[in-house]
Amino acid sequence: MNNLYLALIHHPVTNKKGDTIASALTTIDLHDIARAAATFGAAGFYVVTPLEDQMRLAGEVLDHWITGVGGRLNPFRKQALEKIKVVASFEEAVADLEAEHKKKATSVATSAARYSRAVTARQLAETIDSNGPVVMAFGTAWGLSEPFVNQCDLILEPISGWDNYNHLSVRSAVSIILDRICMNHQYLTTNTSQV
Amino acid sequence: MNNLYLALIHHPVTNKKGDTIASALTTIDLHDIARAAATFGAAGFYVVTPLEDQMRLAGEVLDHWITGVGGRLNPFRKQALEKIKVVASFEEAVADLEAEHKKKATSVATSAARYSRAVTARQLAETIDSNGPVVMAFGTAWGLSEPFVNQCDLILEPISGWDNYNHLSVRSAVSIILDRICMNHQYLTTNTSQV
Repeated sequence: MNNLYLALIHHPVTNKKGDTIASALTTIDLHDIARAAATFGAAGFYVVTPLEDQMRLAGEVLDHWITGVGGRLNPFRKQALEKIKVVASFEEAVADLEAEHKKKATSVATSAARYSRAVTARQLAETIDSNGPVVMAFGTAWGLSEPFVNQCDLILEPISGWDNYNHLSVRSAVSIILDRICMNHQYLTTNTSQV
Repeated sequence: MNNLYLALIHHPVTNKKGDTIASALTTIDLHDIARAAATFGAAGFYVVTPLEDQMRLAGEVLDHWITGVGGRLNPFRKQALEKIKVVASFEEAVADLEAEHKKKATSVATSAARYSRAVTARQLAETIDSNGPVVMAFGTAWGLSEPFVNQCDLILEPISGWDNYNHLSVRSAVSIILDRICMNHQYLTTNTSQV
């Protein structure tokens, strides 16, 4: 899936009261999501924060694990974290991958809320390969702000579990969604090659 | 899935060199895995550590989020963490849930390695409901020790991604496996009720 990208959004996201905020970085998000991206073959992972101190913090984590002692001790972690680029806005991430692919990107919002125009993982998997790059945005804190969701090209349906409880960590949500897309993508690829 | 249980094993697991060790608790594991358990309707989540100071640490986390201020601020987190029981060994977890269900439990090992007798998520989903309780063991650190895996009734096949990179965090692995089992279980339940 060499045109599927992830973006972890720290602004604009909401807090518990619904206000739009810029959230602080959680360094374990970088590790877990980069490892999932590497496992499922996502092409890249943008960490999006407008806060300069948080950009510096992300840079320090990456330095330690890519060029520093962490990377020598754990080359698998280095391999995963090399997928990360730190950018100040989602627009910057989109511009970066459009410049790389020389094609318009499709932006995909994820949300625990239900939107009438939401697509399934199967439908999203169908768009991968057929067009330009696809970038999925995941919200930290209490999730992506509604205006952000509404301005994305696509919205992915929420992960529905069993008990109407849907308060997964963003780390879990990214992992599950990548697995679902990868499974559907493999199914579609196999299916197409059999025709 | 009211007879599916999770166990997060801190002993016996391996370190990078393959030695069997008791690993330290990572408190975010408790949160992420409990939230995934609540989302997918797992009946309970055993945190298994023989180390008294680590059992105390787990107890302090649970106190804060269940009876303390955390639970009042975030009732969803309280609801998830209430699924946790801290026990000293996997045997103790098995004895506890066998006493509750008055039936023999099926133990399931998870591993990033391939075992010839490994079952798929579909096959595992078929065993849920048909027998007594099922408890899936997940290893921290570099994974469950091989003797532990071999003594389990079943072994679940590893999560295979795309790039032969399978170094997911245990938090991601639990989330993906619960999603796969839940999807298969829902499919089987729907299928059966249509017959």
